[in-house]
Amino acid sequence: MSEPAVAVVDAATSGNVGTIARAMKNFGFEDLLLVDPPYLGRDSEAYGFAGHAREDVLPSARELSFEDLVAEYHTVGFTAITNEDATKHVRFPFRTPAELSESLADVEADTALVFGRERVGLTNDELARIDEVASIPANHEYPVMNLGQAATVALYELRGLAMDETQLPDVERHRADEEAVERLYEHAEGFLAAVDYPEEKREKVMRMLRRLAGRAHPTGREVNTILGLMRRAENKME
Amino acid sequence: MSEPAVAVVDAATSGNVGTIARAMKNFGFEDLLLVDPPYLGRDSEAYGFAGHAREDVLPSARELSFEDLVAEYHTVGFTAITNEDATKHVRFPFRTPAELSESLADVEADTALVFGRERVGLTNDELARIDEVASIPANHEYPVMNLGQAATVALYELRGLAMDETQLPDVERHRADEEAVERLYEHAEGFLAAVDYPEEKREKVMRMLRRLAGRAHPTGREVNTILGLMRRAENKME
Repeated sequence: MSEPAVAVVDAATSGNVGTIARAMKNFGFEDLLLVDPPYLGRDSEAYGFAGHAREDVLPSARELSFEDLVAEYHTVGFTAITNEDATKHVRFPFRTPAELSESLADVEADTALVFGRERVGLTNDELARIDEVASIPANHEYPVMNLGQAATVALYELRGLAMDETQLPDVERHRADEEAVERLYEHAEGFLAAVDYPEEKREKVMRMLRRLAGRAHPTGREVNTILGLMRRAENKME
Repeated sequence: MSEPAVAVVDAATSGNVGTIARAMKNFGFEDLLLVDPPYLGRDSEAYGFAGHAREDVLPSARELSFEDLVAEYHTVGFTAITNEDATKHVRFPFRTPAELSESLADVEADTALVFGRERVGLTNDELARIDEVASIPANHEYPVMNLGQAATVALYELRGLAMDETQLPDVERHRADEEAVERLYEHAEGFLAAVDYPEEKREKVMRMLRRLAGRAHPTGREVNTILGLMRRAENKME
């Protein structure tokens, strides 16, 4: 699919729009749509909160009516409060952001993720005109998130629709190869002998070390460092 | 494990502390630790941004030194900027929040998720004294998130460590049972005959309808509504 747009309906505080713009830039989204926005001039809080999104996402945002939004886009409305069951349809069924990241991958149409105003979110009238409902799983005692924070979580979870490459190096490549890890275990056995560890307990300790390294996925450098430490200790002991 | 604490180191703006407190409450976290905090009185922005967390998380926050933090807790430090490989160890290896939610589930020790100051995050000196490094995957062109937004994403992803129950009803229960869905398909075949749909194309259309319903996971009410629509149309056609 093409990357979804992000629509903010009737936000009251420009700072929240800036926060959303920053999250968009952090997770690779570009198209910001605004229905009844607050004042968003260069001297507004939006620019203070937008980070580098002040250079592109925010100034290229497009204002449109709610009618045009639902007419032009496949719309996904976010709400903290869903209906409890299928007897009322305005806020049910819903998808979680994680489910949405899979289901939207197949959607060919232009899609907009829609977030509502600060205090009451999207109204029932608005949700009734929106194609899909989404809800972020949260604490049942207090599921209502701040507008900017809700959009940030949603865009994080949907980042796979908007970007291919993160800042993080590919860790797999950096894990020590199995040969190096095995060398570590072999050396550890020798080390246990060198420190006169009780013979009947060695097997158990080796198993523990194997589990420990198995969980930690050591890098080649880590393996070498630990091998070096054992060798130094052995040299001292001789 | 016991639910992790959340530590904020040297935040400059109290609003960010309030944002973090709100995200904590939204995702079931309770213990807020503060190293060198800004002014956080009842009249500060922290209380403005905290939502219902102003009633518990924020007023019960505990101030402590960085030394006590690393001494008392298994610490996980968050940073947008990791090292590229294993030649430098201060910011490598790292875990993503998703990986962390699995690996921390086994940790028995008191754990603190540590977030650094607004502009530069945690320093190399601080990260060197922290037990594990975590990083949120983001746009390689602009991975640096706002402090409050980074903590919100991390706490969302780690919510499974802090809460059992969300506000969302169990959707599985509400899906129509297979029998009802099959009834829908059977009726649809009759409907195709009733509208004189070309016989050679019916099989293909039925397959399409099956895929459509398969993706949509209709509720019992939805199935009944569509059945009703077809019956009404059939009655009109007779």
